[in-house]
Amino acid sequence: MFVRELDPALKAIESLRKHGVVVHCITNTVAQNFTANILLACGAKPSMTASPEEVPYFSERCDGLLVNLGTLDMPRREAIVAAMEVCTRKNVPMVFDPVKCDLSPPRLEFSRQLLTRFQPLLKANIAEAEALGDIPVACRVTTGKIDRIEAGDEKIAIANGDPLLGRIIATGCALGGLVAALGAVAENQRVGALAALVWFGVAAEIAAPKARGPASFKSLFIDALAGVDTATLRAKANIS
Amino acid sequence: MFVRELDPALKAIESLRKHGVVVHCITNTVAQNFTANILLACGAKPSMTASPEEVPYFSERCDGLLVNLGTLDMPRREAIVAAMEVCTRKNVPMVFDPVKCDLSPPRLEFSRQLLTRFQPLLKANIAEAEALGDIPVACRVTTGKIDRIEAGDEKIAIANGDPLLGRIIATGCALGGLVAALGAVAENQRVGALAALVWFGVAAEIAAPKARGPASFKSLFIDALAGVDTATLRAKANIS
Amino acid sequence: MFVRELDPALKAIESLRKHGVVVHCITNTVAQNFTANILLACGAKPSMTASPEEVPYFSERCDGLLVNLGTLDMPRREAIVAAMEVCTRKNVPMVFDPVKCDLSPPRLEFSRQLLTRFQPLLKANIAEAEALGDIPVACRVTTGKIDRIEAGDEKIAIANGDPLLGRIIATGCALGGLVAALGAVAENQRVGALAALVWFGVAAEIAAPKARGPASFKSLFIDALAGVDTATLRAKANIS
Repeated sequence: MFVRELDPALKAIESLRKHGVVVHCITNTVAQNFTANILLACGAKPSMTASPEEVPYFSERCDGLLVNLGTLDMPRREAIVAAMEVCTRKNVPMVFDPVKCDLSPPRLEFSRQLLTRFQPLLKANIAEAEALGDIPVACRVTTGKIDRIEAGDEKIAIANGDPLLGRIIATGCALGGLVAALGAVAENQRVGALAALVWFGVAAEIAAPKARGPASFKSLFIDALAGVDTATLRAKANIS
Repeated sequence: MFVRELDPALKAIESLRKHGVVVHCITNTVAQNFTANILLACGAKPSMTASPEEVPYFSERCDGLLVNLGTLDMPRREAIVAAMEVCTRKNVPMVFDPVKCDLSPPRLEFSRQLLTRFQPLLKANIAEAEALGDIPVACRVTTGKIDRIEAGDEKIAIANGDPLLGRIIATGCALGGLVAALGAVAENQRVGALAALVWFGVAAEIAAPKARGPASFKSLFIDALAGVDTATLRAKANIS
Repeated sequence: MFVRELDPALKAIESLRKHGVVVHCITNTVAQNFTANILLACGAKPSMTASPEEVPYFSERCDGLLVNLGTLDMPRREAIVAAMEVCTRKNVPMVFDPVKCDLSPPRLEFSRQLLTRFQPLLKANIAEAEALGDIPVACRVTTGKIDRIEAGDEKIAIANGDPLLGRIIATGCALGGLVAALGAVAENQRVGALAALVWFGVAAEIAAPKARGPASFKSLFIDALAGVDTATLRAKANIS
């Protein structure tokens, strides 16, 4: 029944490549460079400033916001709240990735506060989602062997990808950036998330057979994101 | 008329490769790793500490300084002033890159303060240069489709490069590091900047035809920086 | 006489690949991404949070700890002490890399405090080791053209590696992470360090002949770490 979501998702990808969008990312220092390169490869324009003094200015001009809790610290906490306030006021779509909130009680508590106060798309892995419990969110992406999107009664499962994605750091973090980019051009967050998950997963499938290991996979994967056409994405999308 | 600058520029490149110089970089967390790898590929030795407690010690021992305002925060502001004070006293050449100062009023104001108080080479893109207005600087590099160097009445235009440079993050930031490295071995900042722009642009031209996308381009580009000889740089330099 | 150490070292590598271990790394922002990718390629699971509020929670759950003083700042200092307290209490093996302590008096002083108060393996290059002087440590790795391990009266020299390791940033930092990972599965720190040095050095020797320059070397090196079998490591290990 969800094949009907695929056409608008592919349209969002074409729109991103054609027009570009600015995605402001408050993300961890491990993932910043990789996330920015993924976004550039996909046609988006990243900015990455994370200090509370300057984040409001970058948030005012962005089309999508990624908030990622890796390497969380006090200035990042302040910057995150400031950015989400601006984006809420301006109705800019937000993606929230509560990285490893299952391992750190203060991070879990902060995640709950943000999800209560703001309305971002929630992107989490299974352990993080379980730690958060059933906080209501309008759109939820849960990543795993099968990725799942839930928005109200709508559910989509995406079975693309390759295990090599788990052998390079920050692929999940970078995926969050791509969800934010596509959320800014798609008709809704659900369609944007579907576009991002299919694009990411199919690019990994294209890259994996040519890879000699995780580092060559990483390079092939970014090149595949940049180069894959939407006809290939349509043919290889494994969704239900 | 500016071909006369090319010989000393190529000589600076040979000198950097032969002797190495230490470049201290106060730069953004997105660009640090890439900038360091570019500098190592070109024969320089980078250091990257950005805390105000330690920057004075690293500044005392460096041959060139890069100040880049990406991911600016309060400790970086303090560190930048401390480093520029040391380098001014020791007459160490400085490069200043006011990244995205056109998008953030506090960053623009800080940029103006630094340019009033210190005398670095200014490296900016067109939007940043326009935001700064006509603050007088001894040497100014403005990057774009054509890169331009202005120093007093001397003007040089460099038309090397490839659009793929815009598909990977922090190429402009890394270029700033290379300008700082070459400024430390060249007869003056103008010649150092010319050397950096030609080297960067020609390496991109060597890498681009072999690339399958932005990630393979990135790898080929760094290898080309490390491997290109000065005869090739001379032959491909597109300057006027 | 030290060939007897090689078998348990290779066994530690197999154990790491089979079971994985969690290595918490408080390391510099230049090295974080590369270190994490090295650890993932070798079968370990990295975490990288460096804020004092959260480091205790990550330290409680790690199997090995890396403390690296690059880009040291005040929050990192606090986090390092907090993490080492937890790991000392839990008897988790620790690796300490006093990056560039020879260049910064406050960093040197902090290094001495840590080595007096805690009992990590010390991994340093020759300049750093000389700056530190003869502080007693239970296990010491000194890197250079020949890498050396000293633990009490036991001394091992490892002559593997390739000069290209010096043309990419943070190889020494990433090596520290690998020493921490292998220390967590080896019968003792000395054996873990030997495993890490042989693995690193032989992977570099496999990668170097195929490289076109430092960037392709980096990719080939990570792939070689992931792919090399222990029979090859045994055959190529150059230890005495």
